[in-house]
Amino acid sequence: MQFVINRDYFVHSVQHVTKAISSRTTIPILTGIKIVADHEGVTLTGSDSDISIECVIPIEEDGEQLVQIIEEGSIVLQAKFFAEIVKKLPEDKIELVVQDQFATTLRSGSSVFNLNGLDPEEYPRLPQIEEENLFQIQNDLMKNIIRQTVFAVSTAETRPILTGVNWQVENKQLTCTATDSHRLAIRKAAIETNIENLTFNNIVIPGKSLTELSKIIDDNDGLLDIVVTENQILFKSKNLLFFSRLLDGNYPATKNMIPDHSKTDIFLETKGFLQAIERALLLSRDGKNNVVNFKTLEDGIVEITSVTPEIGRVTERINTKQLNGEELRISFNGKNIIDALKIVDSNEIKISFTGAMSPFLLRPVDSDKALHLFSPVRTY
Amino acid sequence: MQFVINRDYFVHSVQHVTKAISSRTTIPILTGIKIVADHEGVTLTGSDSDISIECVIPIEEDGEQLVQIIEEGSIVLQAKFFAEIVKKLPEDKIELVVQDQFATTLRSGSSVFNLNGLDPEEYPRLPQIEEENLFQIQNDLMKNIIRQTVFAVSTAETRPILTGVNWQVENKQLTCTATDSHRLAIRKAAIETNIENLTFNNIVIPGKSLTELSKIIDDNDGLLDIVVTENQILFKSKNLLFFSRLLDGNYPATKNMIPDHSKTDIFLETKGFLQAIERALLLSRDGKNNVVNFKTLEDGIVEITSVTPEIGRVTERINTKQLNGEELRISFNGKNIIDALKIVDSNEIKISFTGAMSPFLLRPVDSDKALHLFSPVRTY
Repeated sequence: MQFVINRDYFVHSVQHVTKAISSRTTIPILTGIKIVADHEGVTLTGSDSDISIECVIPIEEDGEQLVQIIEEGSIVLQAKFFAEIVKKLPEDKIELVVQDQFATTLRSGSSVFNLNGLDPEEYPRLPQIEEENLFQIQNDLMKNIIRQTVFAVSTAETRPILTGVNWQVENKQLTCTATDSHRLAIRKAAIETNIENLTFNNIVIPGKSLTELSKIIDDNDGLLDIVVTENQILFKSKNLLFFSRLLDGNYPATKNMIPDHSKTDIFLETKGFLQAIERALLLSRDGKNNVVNFKTLEDGIVEITSVTPEIGRVTERINTKQLNGEELRISFNGKNIIDALKIVDSNEIKISFTGAMSPFLLRPVDSDKALHLFSPVRTY
Repeated sequence: MQFVINRDYFVHSVQHVTKAISSRTTIPILTGIKIVADHEGVTLTGSDSDISIECVIPIEEDGEQLVQIIEEGSIVLQAKFFAEIVKKLPEDKIELVVQDQFATTLRSGSSVFNLNGLDPEEYPRLPQIEEENLFQIQNDLMKNIIRQTVFAVSTAETRPILTGVNWQVENKQLTCTATDSHRLAIRKAAIETNIENLTFNNIVIPGKSLTELSKIIDDNDGLLDIVVTENQILFKSKNLLFFSRLLDGNYPATKNMIPDHSKTDIFLETKGFLQAIERALLLSRDGKNNVVNFKTLEDGIVEITSVTPEIGRVTERINTKQLNGEELRISFNGKNIIDALKIVDSNEIKISFTGAMSPFLLRPVDSDKALHLFSPVRTY
C-alpha cells in the first residue's frame, strides 16, 4: 500500500475515528485504526465493538485532490500514537507506505516515522445494515436533542437499560426519553422520512454512544441520515458512518408518570433560578444528597434554603414572574434541577407542583417539545 | 465586626490569599482565611506556614470607596467554601457581619450565607521582617526570571536543597540558578537597590513559592520590592505582601561546571528544533528515559533519531543555521531539552558541545543573560 494524503483532512478523520477507540479493550486489534486505500480514497475505521466509526477521505473534493493512491492496500496502526503523530507532522502532505510484515513508513518533509503495523485481516467487519427504516434530522437539532437528554441517563449499572436514551418514532415525531429513576427528561422533535407509518418504540441507545456522536456531528443545518435495525443504529453524514449497538431489554413505560394537573404553578427566570440554586449548593458540594428546601412566601416570592451542619446555612429569595395556586414547602435534589436548567433553551421556565410528596414538572415556557420530571426528597 | 465591601476587589483578594492555603495542612486554623477590618480597610491573610500571602483592600482607591467599615474586628473563615461563595454572590456589594461565637453572616442582594467562623486569636502571626536588605525588580521581568528557572528544579525530595532556586546578588546583578543535577538553568538580571555592595550568595527559595508568586504578580513594568532575611524572603507590591520560607542548607557550587571551551558549535532555529524533538519523543511518551540520539551529517545537517522497541522509530533531519567544529554523535534526555527550548526567549539558539561524554551548553544567540547546561546520556 502507498498513498500521499492531505494532512489536515487526515488529521481530522483520524481524530473522528479515534473517538470510538478504547485503550481498555480486550481485543488487541481494536486498539488500532484500520486504514484502507482503494479507488474511492482512504477509509479509516475505529471501534470498541459498541461504537464503530468509519471516515472516508475521498480522492477529490470540490475540485481539490486530497489523496493520491499509488498502490491500493490496507493496514492497522496503533491509535494511541497515531493521532498525535499525524497532528505534529511538519508538512501539508503525508506519505504512507506499507512494506513487508506490515512495516509502515510515514513521511512528511524531513520527518520519518517507521511504525510496526498489525494485520488488517484480523480487524472485525463492520455490521451490514439494510437501509429499510431510514429517517432524517438536521445536524444541529440532533446535537441539541442529545444535549437535552443524555445528561439524565443513569450512570449506575444496576439497571443497564437506564444508561441509554429511549427513542420512539410515531407520526413523524421523535420522542427521546432519559431517566435515572429520580429525574426524567423528554425531548420531542419532528423528523423527515419517506416511509409512511414509520414507528419504533423500544430503541434504546447507550448514552455514551450519543455523547460521542454529538462530538462528531457538524453544527450546521445539514441532514443526518439515521437507519435503525434490530440491534444497531447507524448515523450517516458526509464521508462519515457512525454505528452504535442498541441496548437489550424493555425500556420502562414513562407516559403515565407525568402528572396531568397541578396545585401550584410557578414561573421563574431561568438564569436567576439556576444561580440561586448553585449558591444554595455551594456549602454542600461534598455532601451526597444536595438537598434544597423550597418554600413559597407572600407576594410571589419563593425562598430556597440549604443547611450543612458544621459549615453553615444559605438562604436565597427569588422573585417569581408569576405564582399561582396553593402554598408549598418541598425539598428536592438541587443538583438535578441545575442539570436541567443548564440545558433549557428558554429564558423562562414553569414549574408545576402537585403537592410536597409528588413528582413535579419543569418546562420551558416557550416550547412544548421539552419536559423534565423530578421526584421530591423526603426530609422528615 | 461589620463592613460592606466592593465585591470585585474582595473576590480578587480572596483568590490571591487562597493560593497560599493548602487543604492538607496539619494546622486546622490554616485551612481558613483571616479577615481583619480596621481603619486601613480590610486585610486578608492565607498561609500554609511555608508561604503566607497578605492582601489589603483599602478604604478608598483612586477616589472610589471600596470598603465601608461599620465595626472593626476580625474573623477566620473556611477558605474552601469562601472563594467560591464570594465569586457567585449576586450583587456588586457584599456585607459581612460577625456576631457572637464567630457566627458570620455574608449578605449580597437577596442571598444570605450564615457561616461558622473560627477564632482569629488562634491564627499565627506573620513573620516580622526588618527591611534592611531591600532591592527591586520589575514585575514582568520577575515573572520571566521565575518562568525561566523554576522548571529546572528537582522534584525529588532526596536532595531538598535542589527543590529550590538559588539566588545570588553581586554588583547589582541577580543570578538565579536551578538544577535537578541532570540539567541546569541560569538566568541573570539587573536589580535596583540603594544599598552599596548588597551581596547574597546562599538564598534558596522553594520552587513552589516562586510558582505561586508568579501567578500573583501583575504582568506590568511596576517595581516589586524584595526583602531578604536569614530564613525568609518577602515580596511587596501594591496592597500585597508575599512571604516565603527559605530552604536550609548549602546550595552546590555550579560555577565550575560550565565548560569554557567547545569542540562543536551548532546554531539552530528554536521552534523547528523544538518541534523535531517533540516528534522524536512521540513514540516514547510512556518511556522513562526520553533518550534522543543526535548526530551531525554533511552539509550542516543534523539528524535526530529515537527508537522505541515494539512500536517504531522516528528520524528527523534539521538544517542548522551554522555548524562549526568536529563531527559529533551524542545522546541526551529530549524532554529536558524541550523544557528549555519552550522558555527560551529567542528565535535562534546556540548549542556548544565538548564531546559525547561531556555536559553541553544551550544559549539564546541574542542574550548573555540565560544559559542551560545538560548532561548527556550514555547509551552503550
